[in-house]
Amino acid sequence: MQYLFVTQPNFQKAFNHLLAARAMDTSAVKQPVTDILNRIKAHGDTALCEYTTKFDRLSITSQQLRITNEEIEQAYQRTSKELLDALNVAASRIKAFHEKQLPPDLHYNDESGFELGYHWRPMDSAGLYVPGGTAAYPSSVLMNAIPAKVAGVKRLAMCVPSPDGHLNPLVLAAAHTVGITEIYRIGGAQAIAALAFGTQTIAPVDYIVGPGNAYVAEAKRQVYGLVGIDSVAGPSEVVVLADCNNDPTHIALDLLAQAEHDKMAQSVFITNDEAFADQVVNAVEQQLQVLSRQEIARASWENHGAVIVVEDWSQAAELINQIAPEHLELMLEDPDILFNEIRHAGTIFVGKWCPEAIGDYVGGPNHVLPTSRTARFSSGLSVFDFMKRTTFLKSNKKGIQTVGPAAVAIANTEGLTAHALSISQRLKSLSK
Amino acid sequence: MQYLFVTQPNFQKAFNHLLAARAMDTSAVKQPVTDILNRIKAHGDTALCEYTTKFDRLSITSQQLRITNEEIEQAYQRTSKELLDALNVAASRIKAFHEKQLPPDLHYNDESGFELGYHWRPMDSAGLYVPGGTAAYPSSVLMNAIPAKVAGVKRLAMCVPSPDGHLNPLVLAAAHTVGITEIYRIGGAQAIAALAFGTQTIAPVDYIVGPGNAYVAEAKRQVYGLVGIDSVAGPSEVVVLADCNNDPTHIALDLLAQAEHDKMAQSVFITNDEAFADQVVNAVEQQLQVLSRQEIARASWENHGAVIVVEDWSQAAELINQIAPEHLELMLEDPDILFNEIRHAGTIFVGKWCPEAIGDYVGGPNHVLPTSRTARFSSGLSVFDFMKRTTFLKSNKKGIQTVGPAAVAIANTEGLTAHALSISQRLKSLSK
Repeated sequence: MQYLFVTQPNFQKAFNHLLAARAMDTSAVKQPVTDILNRIKAHGDTALCEYTTKFDRLSITSQQLRITNEEIEQAYQRTSKELLDALNVAASRIKAFHEKQLPPDLHYNDESGFELGYHWRPMDSAGLYVPGGTAAYPSSVLMNAIPAKVAGVKRLAMCVPSPDGHLNPLVLAAAHTVGITEIYRIGGAQAIAALAFGTQTIAPVDYIVGPGNAYVAEAKRQVYGLVGIDSVAGPSEVVVLADCNNDPTHIALDLLAQAEHDKMAQSVFITNDEAFADQVVNAVEQQLQVLSRQEIARASWENHGAVIVVEDWSQAAELINQIAPEHLELMLEDPDILFNEIRHAGTIFVGKWCPEAIGDYVGGPNHVLPTSRTARFSSGLSVFDFMKRTTFLKSNKKGIQTVGPAAVAIANTEGLTAHALSISQRLKSLSK
Repeated sequence: MQYLFVTQPNFQKAFNHLLAARAMDTSAVKQPVTDILNRIKAHGDTALCEYTTKFDRLSITSQQLRITNEEIEQAYQRTSKELLDALNVAASRIKAFHEKQLPPDLHYNDESGFELGYHWRPMDSAGLYVPGGTAAYPSSVLMNAIPAKVAGVKRLAMCVPSPDGHLNPLVLAAAHTVGITEIYRIGGAQAIAALAFGTQTIAPVDYIVGPGNAYVAEAKRQVYGLVGIDSVAGPSEVVVLADCNNDPTHIALDLLAQAEHDKMAQSVFITNDEAFADQVVNAVEQQLQVLSRQEIARASWENHGAVIVVEDWSQAAELINQIAPEHLELMLEDPDILFNEIRHAGTIFVGKWCPEAIGDYVGGPNHVLPTSRTARFSSGLSVFDFMKRTTFLKSNKKGIQTVGPAAVAIANTEGLTAHALSISQRLKSLSK
């Protein structure tokens, strides 16, 4: 963990180092991923089953790629009522929030003789990647699937690997909760390739969402353009900003909630009070002891954690805008001024009763958020991701007569004769 | 040109071939682009000037990278009044359309004790790539810059190469029209690298837009993630659908307006009348003679052009949805039924008085559109591209007490102790 003071002489240098240290480098897996993509493209199911045998140690035929409705139903039936209730609370809140995102179409007439606008339409199909093993989270299924469902995507195909045949039944239960029925037991770059190119068993999709390891991230990057993707997710981060009127243990747990995800995760604590910062650092050490994923959380905190002591909150706002954190907690009595100064963050949790974990599960806003400073230019997953706009333009005779000559002038300047003629010939017909 | 009939036995196969034939393959330039990116990252201005000397045959120092305000002003002054008027007509119509896109924020309280929503914010900076040589189009400057300006992006940095020192003054005039003052005389992958990584002279940007050759496209793909990009643009296409109550020459010119852009461009004509199709084919041959870019247009039409004769319009709608064309013209007396059946298209021009060239310049909607079937999942350039959402969640004590237990249940299931504790410890403080 790094302990930084805004007042120290080399602060900006140390802070820049903090920003730069975690960028995900997938260059080592570039070629292997290209090879996997090419083999799936060429050999379809055959290659898909071979890779599943090789990487997941699961011998499988084409007929077994898809998880049966019975398996899904069974997983759902075996899930405790308490957990199903919790998933339903989460699903209904996520759905309510995302339904408010459905964007309005645009349609108007202007005074020059045009009728114009755009309409939003869902894409036909989307693929949802869910990691296997310990990172197979039912909450991710909800967060990725619900915006697609709300957008109106008709076909949702989910892939989740089952390493050594082990599949987290809660992932299937969560899928059942949101009505996903097309699920394949495949993972890694080969799953992304199957979704993008299609195989004999799996029809190709238009868009792929969901987190994954370096292979999955690189595969998504490589198929981007042929299909759409949500983002190339990097390691996760949180910035917690708090004054001393907070419980240090609460803050420590919020920092560790980020750290326990991944050794590459980053937790940053910002305060204006050095004594309070010390209390939080001590509380982190104490709370680390009780975590089931202590080793991961410790590695993250020790290698990537930071505590920054500022002189005032507007210094803090400036630092936060440079970090553009995926998650930001503002634990101040009066957070509004600072809240309005934040230009770049994936999501903001406001007040002492709103830890990030609420937003991870049941807040309503999406927990798939821009990582590694990409909140400078991108947003969390939403209904918008699963829809696209078609613009339209309708002209009557007056329209082309009013603005046609300007278009002809530009077209001629650009040396595009057919562009110019396509308008001027029509103008000629009209003047006859 | 391929002449296809929906009724012919091998139609779907021939149609699929038509769809697949034009995908842009940048694999040949992958490694050279990686090398250029790495050198710019490591050596900044020095490498940038070296590449400019090498590729643009323009010997240049760091101090000369930026085009001076005097040069921009001069280019503007030298532009004819007629063309400036035309650019102003275009700019004001594009601005009016894009201003209507500014999306509303979301902010509400729910019955569980939460205040939540999102706000849209512009990104801080964007880079605008403009190709050099014959493809240096002033209209592209307007179409790329205006949405950024409307979104509220403070810094816009433009790059345009000047091969052999030649720079199209109209590009500078168009930039002046929309208030761009930061312009660099660089191009290719090296310009994309400079915008993404920054150099001594050029500050890095958050987002890069604009068309370019295979090097530019591959460079954008490689820096994607570090910065945002609009899209990896492929070759352009149009589908013109018309009944026989149209002038074959108008249709021919619309098809050729697409073809004259690029040998890889694709123009597809769909009709229900074979005799009329023949008339259009003849008109294309005639109009080809008068084009200044005849050679390019002919290569495009001969290699990628197609005429498809359908039995009825709903067959046509199905084909169009498979093509997901960048541009679609619907030249029917009553186009509404068909219009509503189109799920995937970048933009639609409706009626016989609305050729694509109107939309290329002065319609209002953006002419930067999803190419090569990507309209299945993506949209034309817009104000949305230059903004991002920050979601927020504020909980009072009631909020965490209402939904906290559900979150704790899911967190425990996922094995994330700190997540669970960050909520349960707060619930404990509240119950004291």
